[in-house]
Amino acid sequence: MEGLKEIRLLVMDVDGTLTDGAMYYGPDGEVMKRFMTRDGMGITLLHKAGILTAIITSEDTSIVRARAQKLKIEHVRMGVHDKSTALRLLATDLAIPLQHIAYIGDDVNDLHVMKICGVSACPSDAVEAIRNTANIICTSSGGNGAVREFAEAILLAQNKPITLEEQW
Amino acid sequence: MEGLKEIRLLVMDVDGTLTDGAMYYGPDGEVMKRFMTRDGMGITLLHKAGILTAIITSEDTSIVRARAQKLKIEHVRMGVHDKSTALRLLATDLAIPLQHIAYIGDDVNDLHVMKICGVSACPSDAVEAIRNTANIICTSSGGNGAVREFAEAILLAQNKPITLEEQW
Amino acid sequence: MEGLKEIRLLVMDVDGTLTDGAMYYGPDGEVMKRFMTRDGMGITLLHKAGILTAIITSEDTSIVRARAQKLKIEHVRMGVHDKSTALRLLATDLAIPLQHIAYIGDDVNDLHVMKICGVSACPSDAVEAIRNTANIICTSSGGNGAVREFAEAILLAQNKPITLEEQW
Amino acid sequence: MEGLKEIRLLVMDVDGTLTDGAMYYGPDGEVMKRFMTRDGMGITLLHKAGILTAIITSEDTSIVRARAQKLKIEHVRMGVHDKSTALRLLATDLAIPLQHIAYIGDDVNDLHVMKICGVSACPSDAVEAIRNTANIICTSSGGNGAVREFAEAILLAQNKPITLEEQW
Repeated sequence: MEGLKEIRLLVMDVDGTLTDGAMYYGPDGEVMKRFMTRDGMGITLLHKAGILTAIITSEDTSIVRARAQKLKIEHVRMGVHDKSTALRLLATDLAIPLQHIAYIGDDVNDLHVMKICGVSACPSDAVEAIRNTANIICTSSGGNGAVREFAEAILLAQNKPITLEEQW
Repeated sequence: MEGLKEIRLLVMDVDGTLTDGAMYYGPDGEVMKRFMTRDGMGITLLHKAGILTAIITSEDTSIVRARAQKLKIEHVRMGVHDKSTALRLLATDLAIPLQHIAYIGDDVNDLHVMKICGVSACPSDAVEAIRNTANIICTSSGGNGAVREFAEAILLAQNKPITLEEQW
Repeated sequence: MEGLKEIRLLVMDVDGTLTDGAMYYGPDGEVMKRFMTRDGMGITLLHKAGILTAIITSEDTSIVRARAQKLKIEHVRMGVHDKSTALRLLATDLAIPLQHIAYIGDDVNDLHVMKICGVSACPSDAVEAIRNTANIICTSSGGNGAVREFAEAILLAQNKPITLEEQW
Repeated sequence: MEGLKEIRLLVMDVDGTLTDGAMYYGPDGEVMKRFMTRDGMGITLLHKAGILTAIITSEDTSIVRARAQKLKIEHVRMGVHDKSTALRLLATDLAIPLQHIAYIGDDVNDLHVMKICGVSACPSDAVEAIRNTANIICTSSGGNGAVREFAEAILLAQNKPITLEEQW
């Protein structure tokens, strides 16, 4: 996929993409989300290669903020019901053209944004409309390595390392 | 399935249907349930199409109330040990004939109610008695897309959209 | 399996049997276990048929007590490192001969007790030594229906119902 | 695998090895990890055979400390970003030569340490670079029996029991 060589920013959906879609509810609402350690390492590898990462999600919860902080994802847009506009704003803010931005998402609210970015991907268990639209369908499902897989594809296309030096 | 065209209300069981059947217990009892983001989107799509949703469950926990509130499911009947009677009462309250009501459930306490509604469905991992009774056996398991699948089947039968406009 | 007809008590291991073996730890130790709603219904069906249930586990945690209370499992023995002796004591207490007691477990600390009870079973994912010993290997894994499957096998052998009346 | 006979210490990674890689986040950060009861029994069996165990992880969380305490894993090194050096220090502290130390891990930060220990293993779902390096690729995935499998391989090679006496 030619466009991968030019990617400077990876934008990610959260539920069903960085997580397995599980939403754990207690008596007072959502209490936690399940992220995957190997996806986190993929994001770390991108950062080490100088590629930026961001989150755009329709949910608005400090759970996402906590995970983003741990992974040093600097750009987090929450409560977004119009992801295309959010992506255009982010692209302007960071002065990165849309064709140099990659996006990964799993459900119908990711459909429009996937059509305007440079390279789009989805987890293996994304809904049909998304699988029909994404440039790349990962072999891993959401929250179980899809983000890692897409991160490695970007790194490989750019001849960047997908391992760590001994001391990191 | 002809009856799907006439469905105006989808009634859902919770444990094993809207969840994967997992009941997470701490020292003081059940602390959380695992719902699925893509099932939530299915319910959102139904609401946008003007189809109502409801929950009837034998459990009585504010966990269900919290998830229902998030998804704007207005009709929630908990602690129900006679689901057929609860469905008849709900049908009367909403003035919707039983044949226009769809039901999805997974275990033997859903058996009687499935026989009186318009269209019945079950997750792929429902117990045998339920799989033998349901009009539709979903290919997805409980808490992993069964409700989304049934919601899309209703929407498709009624020529309603299964995607979102850009701004929702 | 002839012995199933005579079973009056089902004794269950917890971790890996009534749960999927997952032990969720927070900073202060184990915070929760994952039980399965359909296993709970299996226990309810046994109780309605007049068959007793009990738990014998090497762990000692109020999590197990909370789940047992919800399911009305009256006999709970925790912190047990010699399950055979615990079973013999329970059999004496309840005046039920060992051959009328069924046991289900998944790991090597269940080995001895499985050899002295009337009928033994294990989840599909039990360790090899247990699978080589159990009278019945369930097709379901621990915490995902193994207990329900064994409960139904007992009920079927005794011509007891495996469904519920409309009002329960 | 000849080296297994000489193993006196098993060193384990945590996330993706002793767990399934899931990181459960709440509003204030990581709230819990999912360990596996059968892996715990594997560690108990090693201890009974006189084989030591240790943890080296890049994470720094009291969750790991709590699980280690429960399993009586005495040597826990956290926040380690240079695992090879940490292993060499541990080997010196315990006066155990590197060739008598086994290591199990799943991701690229385990790569260097796996090359200097006596025998290396990885879960079935480890990343490609690790699967290409490990001496043994377990058939079980992380947090679902990989550690138990490796522990049993060590015990078998040393003719040590993989079951428990009746009273343990």
